[in-house]
Amino acid sequence: MEEPLREIAVLDHGFVKLVDFMGGDMAVVQAARVSFGKGVTEPERDRKLLAFLLANRHETPFEHSVFKFHIKCPLFVARQWFRHRIASYNEISGRYATLNEEFCLPEVLRTQKAKNYRYERMAEPENSVLKGKMAAFYQAAYDLYRELLQNGVAKEHARMVLPLALYTQFYWTINARALMNFLSLRLDKHAQDEIRHYAEAIAGVFAEYMPWTFDAFKRYVVSGEKWIE
Amino acid sequence: MEEPLREIAVLDHGFVKLVDFMGGDMAVVQAARVSFGKGVTEPERDRKLLAFLLANRHETPFEHSVFKFHIKCPLFVARQWFRHRIASYNEISGRYATLNEEFCLPEVLRTQKAKNYRYERMAEPENSVLKGKMAAFYQAAYDLYRELLQNGVAKEHARMVLPLALYTQFYWTINARALMNFLSLRLDKHAQDEIRHYAEAIAGVFAEYMPWTFDAFKRYVVSGEKWIE
Amino acid sequence: MEEPLREIAVLDHGFVKLVDFMGGDMAVVQAARVSFGKGVTEPERDRKLLAFLLANRHETPFEHSVFKFHIKCPLFVARQWFRHRIASYNEISGRYATLNEEFCLPEVLRTQKAKNYRYERMAEPENSVLKGKMAAFYQAAYDLYRELLQNGVAKEHARMVLPLALYTQFYWTINARALMNFLSLRLDKHAQDEIRHYAEAIAGVFAEYMPWTFDAFKRYVVSGEKWIE
Amino acid sequence: MEEPLREIAVLDHGFVKLVDFMGGDMAVVQAARVSFGKGVTEPERDRKLLAFLLANRHETPFEHSVFKFHIKCPLFVARQWFRHRIASYNEISGRYATLNEEFCLPEVLRTQKAKNYRYERMAEPENSVLKGKMAAFYQAAYDLYRELLQNGVAKEHARMVLPLALYTQFYWTINARALMNFLSLRLDKHAQDEIRHYAEAIAGVFAEYMPWTFDAFKRYVVSGEKWIE
Repeated sequence: MEEPLREIAVLDHGFVKLVDFMGGDMAVVQAARVSFGKGVTEPERDRKLLAFLLANRHETPFEHSVFKFHIKCPLFVARQWFRHRIASYNEISGRYATLNEEFCLPEVLRTQKAKNYRYERMAEPENSVLKGKMAAFYQAAYDLYRELLQNGVAKEHARMVLPLALYTQFYWTINARALMNFLSLRLDKHAQDEIRHYAEAIAGVFAEYMPWTFDAFKRYVVSGEKWIE
Repeated sequence: MEEPLREIAVLDHGFVKLVDFMGGDMAVVQAARVSFGKGVTEPERDRKLLAFLLANRHETPFEHSVFKFHIKCPLFVARQWFRHRIASYNEISGRYATLNEEFCLPEVLRTQKAKNYRYERMAEPENSVLKGKMAAFYQAAYDLYRELLQNGVAKEHARMVLPLALYTQFYWTINARALMNFLSLRLDKHAQDEIRHYAEAIAGVFAEYMPWTFDAFKRYVVSGEKWIE
Repeated sequence: MEEPLREIAVLDHGFVKLVDFMGGDMAVVQAARVSFGKGVTEPERDRKLLAFLLANRHETPFEHSVFKFHIKCPLFVARQWFRHRIASYNEISGRYATLNEEFCLPEVLRTQKAKNYRYERMAEPENSVLKGKMAAFYQAAYDLYRELLQNGVAKEHARMVLPLALYTQFYWTINARALMNFLSLRLDKHAQDEIRHYAEAIAGVFAEYMPWTFDAFKRYVVSGEKWIE
Repeated sequence: MEEPLREIAVLDHGFVKLVDFMGGDMAVVQAARVSFGKGVTEPERDRKLLAFLLANRHETPFEHSVFKFHIKCPLFVARQWFRHRIASYNEISGRYATLNEEFCLPEVLRTQKAKNYRYERMAEPENSVLKGKMAAFYQAAYDLYRELLQNGVAKEHARMVLPLALYTQFYWTINARALMNFLSLRLDKHAQDEIRHYAEAIAGVFAEYMPWTFDAFKRYVVSGEKWIE
């Protein structure tokens, strides 16, 4: 569909592809210096300015850098993703397209005690037994979806039987400021493991295209380091 | 959970509840007149001003009126709903709560010819036969969800088998301007029938709480009537 | 123009008036508990939940509470104010209304050394001398504005001579989450003193209408206190 | 400060510079076709799809194209500009920088009858006489600004005497959907003449970088042409 600048496989059938990019670390510096009626200077000073901005919550200069991704992820991940409102989305539509038979089946299921958010890896053979039931269920779901379509049921009705494990695809355009907000929430240890894998792939792209910003983000936002003059 | 101001049943298990409201037609007039350093006058003039605003795309005065709804709808409807970004959402979480066994089963399935977006009602007995299969499938999906939970699978993993027909709930706060945008898109004949039922319920609440605005909205936005001085 | 719920004088001619409000601390709790499919419980638990949310950056439940203010402030303050994009504004228009002769003249001018952002109070008699010149200049500006209007110059052109000290008025509707963002930036010691006075007036209103939220905001956002389970 | 892709002089001292761009007509097509699980096809079909989207209010595919401008305009224009909230701004700060002595003086002043929004060109010699007074006043304003600074008054206080005719500068990043909203409002005959000049310069850049989109925008948004299948 396009030739991505970067492509990273995520989970069993998903991916993160960078398809377009605008801006970069120097665009941050340039936007910040307009406050002073000035432009970029030498690297060391510029980099320090950029770190200062992030450490002191001057976040608007980061909005002039923009990433466009092509994402493929399960529906339950997409539902978390689309909560981020300061971004642009165009997704494959189950009203217009016949959806592909691709479902997320985790390598190892996680367990959880009642009223507790600590997760453990499910032991074998339980893990394989339950995954087998899930896989069979996915097959049954897609068979019913196909049967409904073959009997003339409208796509928008037939898709109702598809489970949240189904993969979807979308374009996602987001500026670097909103992207850092996404990453700070979705790289967090409280985020669901599956979306965290996507966040890590995106963080890798971010680090490559805006290395100074990513470095300052890790220190002053993620680790909460204090700025010392 | 709360005592709604208005409550309307939608689809087989859903609802639209108005739980809070701020503003109204006079708040629109008040906000518009601040441009002139003036306030409200007599009803006839005020109502004409309000219609003029909407007919001529002066939409910001409508932002000071705010509706808070409690919505219960199927996941495939919620996914369309959450695309509207200028609004606030808090939804029940499948990571934190065990989701209820409630699925959307249409009274009459819609059919669709290939490469065509005209929908027909499915004839009997096909309709009952296919609905029977869907209902059985919903039961199987929820049984598997329960089995996974009983075997200690984390809620966030177990929910992957739940289909898009599942009902969810959320709070939705939106200003009157963004609400009119929602309504103009979701009352449209190209919108999926299920979300259109929700839009109609919401339009009824809107008409009750902002009657002048709703009337002008129907004439100048929905019907595309031209303003004549 | 309206009967405000609360009114506070700010600077020499300005004010902050609360004219409408929706929500409150319990609306935050209600929106947060929907994640668990639950509602409000007893005060102590609810208040702790609310503090937990703010301390751990779960900010969306605060969006369902909305404040509507009527603000009067100088143009140079309004220009800082309107940078906050997640809010609604309707302002008096210099194209449609003749603007009033009201200018901001600080009680004591601030001084500043070159390349330095530490401010001192200007000593007398310099302060009075320079303020006298500013007052005379404001008078000259308004005289010219009036002369241009009397000669038939369009309002939108005549206003070009009015200085940034001129007072303007606007309605401002903002949810509690965006309001906290405004306050955290504009109560800060790096904010300009004049807008900080407005932020303090607004903080007083906020504390009165959402006391639990304001208390948690001070501890976990402003003071950066860490949450301890 | 940067090497613009395009630069256009506007008014007496202003400019519009395109400094970065991402996307284009094909990016619109690509984003729209993801709904069908498809990509770009041949030009004629793609162009027709793009026009269909705009004519039928499918506006999200236009959000993946992003323009970054460097703008120089008078403060009274900037105040109208910054009302557009779905965009990113970084402006020179009168708190941090000494502002330049550049003021907008229209070639011909506009006149306006009371309670009327029809504007005429002011006749000579009145026009020259009044413009002479405005120019002298601008000089006096800047002289006082300089005097205040020389006496140690803080920049943030001294600027209070500067009139709305003063030129300012900012970076402005905006996606094509929000840009079309800006253009439809600011190219309109009810917009103030000065900002309309900026809108026309920007429309020229837009037409060059997204020719199919601009053409469809003119037909289906500006002229209100109906879509015929």
